[in-house]
Order: sequence, then structure tokens, then C-alpha cells
Amino acid sequence: MDLYQINEFAKEIIFEAGKRIRHSFSYDMVVETKSDPNDLVTNIDRETESFFIEKIKQFDANHRVLGEEGMGEKIESLEGPVWIIDPIDGTMNFVKQHRHFMISIGFYVDGIGRLGYIFDVMREDLFYAIAGEGAWYNNSPLRKLKPLTLEEAVIGINASWVIPNRKLNHEKIIELVRTVRGTRSYGSAAMEIAFVVSGKLDAYISMRLSPWDIAGGVIIANEVGAIATNLNGNDVNLLTNDTFIIANPSIHQLILNSYIEQK
Amino acid sequence: MDLYQINEFAKEIIFEAGKRIRHSFSYDMVVETKSDPNDLVTNIDRETESFFIEKIKQFDANHRVLGEEGMGEKIESLEGPVWIIDPIDGTMNFVKQHRHFMISIGFYVDGIGRLGYIFDVMREDLFYAIAGEGAWYNNSPLRKLKPLTLEEAVIGINASWVIPNRKLNHEKIIELVRTVRGTRSYGSAAMEIAFVVSGKLDAYISMRLSPWDIAGGVIIANEVGAIATNLNGNDVNLLTNDTFIIANPSIHQLILNSYIEQK
Repeated sequence: MDLYQINEFAKEIIFEAGKRIRHSFSYDMVVETKSDPNDLVTNIDRETESFFIEKIKQFDANHRVLGEEGMGEKIESLEGPVWIIDPIDGTMNFVKQHRHFMISIGFYVDGIGRLGYIFDVMREDLFYAIAGEGAWYNNSPLRKLKPLTLEEAVIGINASWVIPNRKLNHEKIIELVRTVRGTRSYGSAAMEIAFVVSGKLDAYISMRLSPWDIAGGVIIANEVGAIATNLNGNDVNLLTNDTFIIANPSIHQLILNSYIEQK
Repeated sequence: MDLYQINEFAKEIIFEAGKRIRHSFSYDMVVETKSDPNDLVTNIDRETESFFIEKIKQFDANHRVLGEEGMGEKIESLEGPVWIIDPIDGTMNFVKQHRHFMISIGFYVDGIGRLGYIFDVMREDLFYAIAGEGAWYNNSPLRKLKPLTLEEAVIGINASWVIPNRKLNHEKIIELVRTVRGTRSYGSAAMEIAFVVSGKLDAYISMRLSPWDIAGGVIIANEVGAIATNLNGNDVNLLTNDTFIIANPSIHQLILNSYIEQK
């Protein structure tokens, strides 16, 4: 399997999908809700996922696709070559802000991450990695993350996890918010992960992410030394929803040990 | 006084300052802290403010300037023509992210807002208004904000106000977080205000802002029907720090009445 060739193919379809999405603002968008009224999906999410699946199947019919909108295969194992795709991460931002939404893609072979992509569609900014070869922000190599203290850190966390909730002892999260230099929340997991791998944020925490939210990002994380795990400190599960933290290596364990207490 | 001429002048110096700031990433930046270790300032903040003051004094020596970095006059009244300037709003983002920081400028005559500007330096995106004439996002008119329910709203609020704090009953803010569709936090007041006036956010709340954080934004707000007040519901004070809310008119009073309880 020629990963360089697959990488060229992946970048090509990502840029092409980005063009289509940007063009979609000029015609009608249909917004629907999924399981809960705040979980939005649009015809553009679905059309973009279909576009990726069609292109990948043309490229190699043996590659399987796990996509957020469920238009690919039902995937119960990561055997063989598998693409894990979120066509639009941050759909609410897509609909309301026309920015701050990402295409997120991970390419796995037998469960091992090989190629990872997070593409900021409106900025046309690509964060990507080839496992073992490094990571890039557009044409510039991404550097290994520099150590820092928790007091200097800026972390991404949604207010949902700072208030009383069913998943976490929020009192500990309040202590975390008080300790760090600042917090941010952008409404796109892939954007916050892209910010951590490029040192624009120092950690991002969520209690509930899906494989397609993180599959691209964890491969990029490996290449820059960011640590991505679930909140038990284990490798993330790419076949089901899981908790998630990605952090600068100098604060990952400290946050888990001192500030995360799951219920 | 020819406001159109002053508007052309203001846009010219804003674009020029933006160019200088973007160029500054290629040379050394000196980061210092102000009153507290999380309040950063750089040589670029100061150089940009000096640049604005010099240009304004050349334009009209009778115009006074109130700037965040204190390089303009000491201003105790808003008599006559006064520029209120934040050369870089979101300095932590400027230093760490190289994006998500704004130039924010308001031009007042005898305390009445005449011209307002928020400029996203890295995107080269200008939100601006001429009082009574309308507001623009680059070359497109900004539309009046459409009504919506609080349940549909996405609001900007920093985690500091969601956790127990000295200013607000945070229990009420927790209820607000639970009621709205989502929350965001970008680390730049001017950016969040620009998002509210353009409908990308529906409200933004802060307990502690300075005149230069909001002076440009409140003028743009007027033109699109956004309501900007302090948390007592009164006009913001442009000579001192104050609390702040800017919101879509359909939810401004509801948030104040039902969710804001100052200590």
C-alpha cells in the first residue's frame, strides 16, 4: 500500500469537498435535527459524505468508510483499510457562523492510524499527518509541542462540563478552570484538536465524542507529541462513543490525575 | 465635520495597522504581563496604539484618543471628538494563536457614537458602522438581526462567569447554559461582539470590560438592532470599566430579567 499516493488522493478529495461546501452557501440549505434538537445535520453534511464515499470506492473498492452520517458501511471492526470521516464537524457553526467547521478524516489500516486530516473549510487550512513521517500545517511542518505549566495553559472545554452534569465531578473542573490561564470553546471538536496539535490550545476535554470527531486528530497528535486518550487514560475507542482528552504532554497526566473524576 | 471623510481615514489606518501587525510575526515579540499574570501586553500592542495616535493627530490635532495602553490623553470626559481604541483585543490569542484578535475602534463626538470598527486582523475582515447610515461586513450590508427564542440561541460567555465568582449568582448562569442551544468562548470581547452584530452569536456577556473593548462594537450594534447595555440594563459607561451584555433584541431583556443576578 502506497501511503504517499493515498495521501495525495486524500488531500485532493478534501480540497474538492471544501470547494463544494463553500459553494453551498449560495444555494438552499436544509437543516434538520438528529437525536436531540441541538444536534443539527444538513443536506450538505450528507452530500459531502456521499462525495467522499464515492471517490474512495472509485479509488479502491476494498476500502471501507465509517462516516458520521451513516452513509458508509456498518463497521464492527477496523480490519483492513478503513476511512473514518466527519464531513462537517461543527454543523451548528456551519449553519450559523459560516466558519469554524472542519472536515475531519482518519485513514486506518488494521486499526493502526496512518493518515490524519483536519481541514478548516473556510480558511482552507489543512492540518495533516503521515504516521511516522511528521505533521504539517499547510506546507509548514508542525513542531513538537513545547512543555509548559498548567498555570500557563489555555484549554478548550465546553461550559456543559463546567456545570453540574452526569458524567464528571464538576467541582474538580471548576478547580481546573481556576488554575489555567484561560479557557476557550469553539463548538467544533476537530477545530479544538487542530488547535492543540499546533500549540494554539494546550488541552481539549470532552465527555462525549464519536470516532469521526477524533480519528483524524489522534494521528496528527502522535506526530507532534500531543497525548490523546479517553478520560481513563486509555487509547480512544474508534468503534464507539468515548470520553476524550488531548493535551500537551507536560500537562496530560496532571489534568487526568488531579482534575478528572468521572461519576 | 465630514463623517464620510473620517470613515475613509479610519479604514485606511486600520488596514495599515493590520498590515504592520501581520508583519510583526516575522520579528521578535516581547510579551509582558500587566496587573495580573494572565493580562498580557506586547510591544506590538504599544506600537500599534502609537501608530494610531500619530496618524489621528496628523489628521486633526483636536481629536483626542483614549487607548488601552494609555499612550493617548488622560480622558475624563467625552467632550468633542474622541477616538476610543483597543489596538489588539485578545492579546493572549495574538501571542499564542496568531489569530482571533481584533482592532477595535469607536469614534465619538460629545459622547455620541458616530463610527464603529472591529477588524479581524488575520482574516482582514472589517465589521463597521456609520451611525444612522447602517453597518457593513466588508462590502456587504449587515442585516437587522432576526428574532429567535432563547432555546435557539448560541451565546458567548467565559467559563469564569459560569463557576462561583464574586460578581454574579452563577447558579442563574448555569440555568442559562442549560437553556440555550450552545455556548462559545473565543477570548476576544471584540470578536464576540462582532459575532453578535452579524448573527453568528446571539448574545455575549461579560462582567468586566473596559471602554476600548466595546466602544466600536456598541455603535455597530445600534445599526443592526442588537442591544448593548451593562448588566443593570443601562447604557454602558465609556469612561470606566463596566459589566456588559450585547444581545439579539428578542432575548436581551429575558436574559437580564431571568438569568442575571449581580452580587
